[in-house]
Amino acid sequence: MAAWEENVRKVVPYTPGEQPNCPGIVKLNTNENPYPPAPGVLRALHEVDGDALRRYPDPTVGKLVKALADYHGLSSAQVFAGVGSDDVLAMSFLTFFNGTKPILFPDITYSFYDVWAGLYGIPYECQPLDAGFYIRTEDYLKDCGGIVIPNPNAPTGMEKDLAGLEEMIAGNPGVIVIIDEAYIDFGGQSVLPLLPKYENLLIVRTFSKSRSLAGMRIGYALGNETLIRYLNDVKYSFNSYTLSAAAIAAGVAAIRDDAYFKETLQKVINTRERMGQELCRLGFSCLDSKSNFIFATHPRYPAKELFESLKQDGIYVRYFQKPRIDQYLRISVGTDAEVDRLIQALEKLVL
Amino acid sequence: MAAWEENVRKVVPYTPGEQPNCPGIVKLNTNENPYPPAPGVLRALHEVDGDALRRYPDPTVGKLVKALADYHGLSSAQVFAGVGSDDVLAMSFLTFFNGTKPILFPDITYSFYDVWAGLYGIPYECQPLDAGFYIRTEDYLKDCGGIVIPNPNAPTGMEKDLAGLEEMIAGNPGVIVIIDEAYIDFGGQSVLPLLPKYENLLIVRTFSKSRSLAGMRIGYALGNETLIRYLNDVKYSFNSYTLSAAAIAAGVAAIRDDAYFKETLQKVINTRERMGQELCRLGFSCLDSKSNFIFATHPRYPAKELFESLKQDGIYVRYFQKPRIDQYLRISVGTDAEVDRLIQALEKLVL
Repeated sequence: MAAWEENVRKVVPYTPGEQPNCPGIVKLNTNENPYPPAPGVLRALHEVDGDALRRYPDPTVGKLVKALADYHGLSSAQVFAGVGSDDVLAMSFLTFFNGTKPILFPDITYSFYDVWAGLYGIPYECQPLDAGFYIRTEDYLKDCGGIVIPNPNAPTGMEKDLAGLEEMIAGNPGVIVIIDEAYIDFGGQSVLPLLPKYENLLIVRTFSKSRSLAGMRIGYALGNETLIRYLNDVKYSFNSYTLSAAAIAAGVAAIRDDAYFKETLQKVINTRERMGQELCRLGFSCLDSKSNFIFATHPRYPAKELFESLKQDGIYVRYFQKPRIDQYLRISVGTDAEVDRLIQALEKLVL
Repeated sequence: MAAWEENVRKVVPYTPGEQPNCPGIVKLNTNENPYPPAPGVLRALHEVDGDALRRYPDPTVGKLVKALADYHGLSSAQVFAGVGSDDVLAMSFLTFFNGTKPILFPDITYSFYDVWAGLYGIPYECQPLDAGFYIRTEDYLKDCGGIVIPNPNAPTGMEKDLAGLEEMIAGNPGVIVIIDEAYIDFGGQSVLPLLPKYENLLIVRTFSKSRSLAGMRIGYALGNETLIRYLNDVKYSFNSYTLSAAAIAAGVAAIRDDAYFKETLQKVINTRERMGQELCRLGFSCLDSKSNFIFATHPRYPAKELFESLKQDGIYVRYFQKPRIDQYLRISVGTDAEVDRLIQALEKLVL
């Protein structure tokens, strides 16, 4: 090891799902939306001109923040925007989890939470899901440095009850409770109505799933004005201009077309229900999903083998070699045609 | 103060230059390029389709990294890309300045360096520029946790001699020396030829100035493979997908049109020289600029008053109310027409 390596921060990074770029594959491994964004998004992108490119973008991301505030019935001062919800969550960890007590999140959850904690040296304690993969409210009613709950949870796709979430938020007034609503639009119940009641609540959302904009990197947070100001202070201490002129334009256009948004959501939800039924028919057990993916296990076939066989067949799903979930596959909801191909491939493997 | 505010990280953020968006103003305050990006950049942006938007972008930013590697005669493993050089610098501070000894940078310099140090709790010691605003090599030949030198420096615009930079890099093999080359394309001499010789050297660059892409947020770092790997580990611990599909496409197109790039640079340099002569004629003293801005002071007129009078006239320049430089204006090089308007406005104020 060279002398200069001594001072280097050494971390175990998050491993994103594979992003293969071969024609003809069925990509159901990173929970992308199978449908393109609203037509207005491409138009907005095409209207970005040389002047918008040569100049710095608006550091306050004003137009997008305003569009989101209006959409959610909040003020602009209650909205924070970032480069995908990962950027927003990372900045939130850095901003709000600055104490010495451990923060709490589920043992089976988005695998970036412990990575951010590691990066910033935040102590944490994972709370085990129960035998049915459910988040137990009582595990989060104790002295801690903060709480992060994904709702619906990933990779299970399961929703946590609103009453339980409110109990956690009300029971921990001294710390920030982050509800990561990356998948909330696919049928879950948001904590948004609780926002006026609890000033320690931060809601994080993304344009990557329900708004078909994973490629543009847009995420946001909703909270009270003080909390959002702290978050912006950290953002302005990191990078004044995080969202590009193109991202701002695309984001605003996506918010504006609510009819397209709802239509796309309904298509994904319908396909999810059909995909669940088909998986059941093939003998899989599926957790109750309120997201755009299904977490499924087969009683007779090892998940890892199915994962690899599907990949051979050009179908990418997600497999996690982790305790308790290593017999499960996380399968994103694709188009109907993609789901047909998946089911046909699985029929050959398990029937 | 609410109970939850106790655990919050409280920082003093960087203040970016104003980004007014009124028609008719002359904006010479944030060192943007007065010319639009290469024509191919807009074409590339218009070719981004719905599929590229709904999917995650390549987390390795492969195409842009390859284009940059080819351009600089390096391997892809020696290139790191981020959301503007601020993002790259912030991640570099977090990655490489993880020791207990203070890092060193000039007292008059890019005012984000001490903000990042504050954000991550990195101890630092500013080294004063000499009376002529020159960086003294000997100040950086001592036990430290790392070094950051902007070359050319901002807001002075002055270049540091290559021999002096090499002495600093060679003299500190145990720590990382970051050379921030945000403005290098405008006439300075890069440390790039030193890269094969020193494994503790990291060069940071941006597309925001010389490549007219401030609005797209693209920056990058060049270094040896081990160093870049550490940087990527931290990036993957923060946000797997930082650069959007649109940014990657725009960046690649910008690199490809080298003729346009060089032509634009020459235009900016020519205008800078003329602007310097005109400012001299009006009685200003200008530091020797190798950047796309001029740092100028007038012996008779307070800089703050000139700054405010120009603003009244619709001309935005940058003024820093800081010790030693509060009699200076930092004026970005605009188009010839913009510089004419600036000079005409100043003529009324100082002649």
